[in-house]
Amino acid sequence: MYTEQYLRSFTRDVFIKMGCCAIDASRIADVFIAAELRGLPSHGMIRLKDYFQLWKANRINVKPNVRIVHETPSTAVVDGDGAVGMVAATRSMEIAIEKAARVGTGWVSTRNSNHFGIAGFYAMMALENDMIGMSMTNANPLVAPTFSITPMLGTNPIAVAIPAGKEPPFVADFATTPIARGKLAVAEKKGEKVPFGFVQNNTGEPSDDPAILKSGGSMLTLGGDYVHGSHKGFCLSAIVDIFSAVFSGANFGPFVPPSVAYLPVLDTRVGEGTGHFFGAMRIDAFQEASVFKASMDKWIETFRKAKPANGREKVIIPGEPEREKEMKIRAEGITILPAIVKEIREIADELGVEFEAAG
Amino acid sequence: MYTEQYLRSFTRDVFIKMGCCAIDASRIADVFIAAELRGLPSHGMIRLKDYFQLWKANRINVKPNVRIVHETPSTAVVDGDGAVGMVAATRSMEIAIEKAARVGTGWVSTRNSNHFGIAGFYAMMALENDMIGMSMTNANPLVAPTFSITPMLGTNPIAVAIPAGKEPPFVADFATTPIARGKLAVAEKKGEKVPFGFVQNNTGEPSDDPAILKSGGSMLTLGGDYVHGSHKGFCLSAIVDIFSAVFSGANFGPFVPPSVAYLPVLDTRVGEGTGHFFGAMRIDAFQEASVFKASMDKWIETFRKAKPANGREKVIIPGEPEREKEMKIRAEGITILPAIVKEIREIADELGVEFEAAG
Repeated sequence: MYTEQYLRSFTRDVFIKMGCCAIDASRIADVFIAAELRGLPSHGMIRLKDYFQLWKANRINVKPNVRIVHETPSTAVVDGDGAVGMVAATRSMEIAIEKAARVGTGWVSTRNSNHFGIAGFYAMMALENDMIGMSMTNANPLVAPTFSITPMLGTNPIAVAIPAGKEPPFVADFATTPIARGKLAVAEKKGEKVPFGFVQNNTGEPSDDPAILKSGGSMLTLGGDYVHGSHKGFCLSAIVDIFSAVFSGANFGPFVPPSVAYLPVLDTRVGEGTGHFFGAMRIDAFQEASVFKASMDKWIETFRKAKPANGREKVIIPGEPEREKEMKIRAEGITILPAIVKEIREIADELGVEFEAAG
Repeated sequence: MYTEQYLRSFTRDVFIKMGCCAIDASRIADVFIAAELRGLPSHGMIRLKDYFQLWKANRINVKPNVRIVHETPSTAVVDGDGAVGMVAATRSMEIAIEKAARVGTGWVSTRNSNHFGIAGFYAMMALENDMIGMSMTNANPLVAPTFSITPMLGTNPIAVAIPAGKEPPFVADFATTPIARGKLAVAEKKGEKVPFGFVQNNTGEPSDDPAILKSGGSMLTLGGDYVHGSHKGFCLSAIVDIFSAVFSGANFGPFVPPSVAYLPVLDTRVGEGTGHFFGAMRIDAFQEASVFKASMDKWIETFRKAKPANGREKVIIPGEPEREKEMKIRAEGITILPAIVKEIREIADELGVEFEAAG
């Protein structure tokens, strides 16, 4: 068990040792720790090794010049200059927020970036400014479009954060697939099958084998099969890809570069790096802030009152499960699996950073 | 079989007889006919009766003052003044496009409107201006949030239209449920069951009964059940509801007024009428227009090349099936079911408008 403060400081030190400036290293650490606190360890400390290996392979730029390359009063394209994704993403969302402060909304598409961690982090940056935040990213191709067997899309998440008044904010943060990639890995390690509707084999037949991606299979889009609306999940995933990469000039679809160093850089590129998309909207661009917040409170209270199904405790208000986890993990500390602790210690040793045994 | 021109002119005459000005009546007719041409007759001529009855019940305003009630350079809230939805929506999307022309993007949330037909129509208005268009609306509550049995949301569609160059545009237009309401009605009439994952009964158990809504059942969100990501579909539907109604001051969730006169006006209101949300983004707010279009062409060509699954002909590029239907229906004419023709003739007789027998 580690405290939030300890892991944040350690992660910052690791990225400083890799050559990042203190501000960038802090930004990166904040996103890593937010993933752990929100109960999404698949996007937390486990990813340190991926970034460390990308750095050793010279595939990330620790001294990036993240900059606007095109803009209008309400939009910008940002070039991440090969930065750690969290650095390019945090700066891009700040630009969206600055633009929203001036003209009501701000929209930023970012190219030449890398894996940015949890999408919800950037959407939630808007909240303290009384703004609605949005964030999405494309990612390594694992997912086949409806009626196809070729992995063309990532799990391409969408996050939307909306402030309320007395109620905590509405925070949706979800992959445009039925499940995250990590759940397949967990089932495989446990020797379990997965429900049909998550993956298909190399001819497009339904499969319950979590290891099917290793033999030419692919993940399915939200909806699962065509009858259940997988083409709608494909639309969503495609929209994320286009907003993130066609808008910015990043690599789209099957050309998105791998976020791990053990996969080779692709021969074919159609743009630069990974792409993201961010949005910020001032709530008082639509309603007086106090009216907006009271109305969101009423929305949340109304949905909270929906009658639970038999055997269910309550309706899930988006953001509530993660907030409950965050309170618990903040109080109890962050658990890192022994295998991950071992990996982190090896990285720490190699970089000459101290890493305590869990307390 | 009717020609597009005939039905457009007839529909315009019907709304003029109800008291709409010629411009508004033309706008309404355009959306009705677009639904027929795109192979979505559930949103076409079949809805004439609903609007006629709402008009007779004095529940729509045929002389509306559709106006901006709040704005920033990139946003507006529009009050539809109880207009036919197509009138409020077309004007709102025009405002989004005007704002995008000036500051890069325009975002409009609309209250005090009614059923607006197909969402895709408004998103596609952006295309001829070299803009990306977005459109969404809330609707009558039929859909239960994950883990709940209370219908709280409509089938809340999202439409996104993105221009390409040589390729036709990307047009996604989908309900945030596995299926549209109309498919349940069709299955019920045929005496067929529906696949599990569409609806649940009044305790939240899975059901295959298309008539279950009449006995306390509800529709499910995209994803179907929690294991398959229905909470993600709920997030999407909730986002549509909040952007359409909390932003604008329309009725949200269970308070959305019925779009048919045979259902009573609700006792409780939390805002005015039905809500919509529209967006327009200039493509050159992100990339030079020629670069953007070439890049979208490349995106579409890339996805077209995805290998089809066994037994499937090709990948569905969003917008392609509707475009193919439109070419066919334009050439062959629009078929109206005899029962609908009968309804239309009754309306025509009552209003004193001529309506030909199908040619």
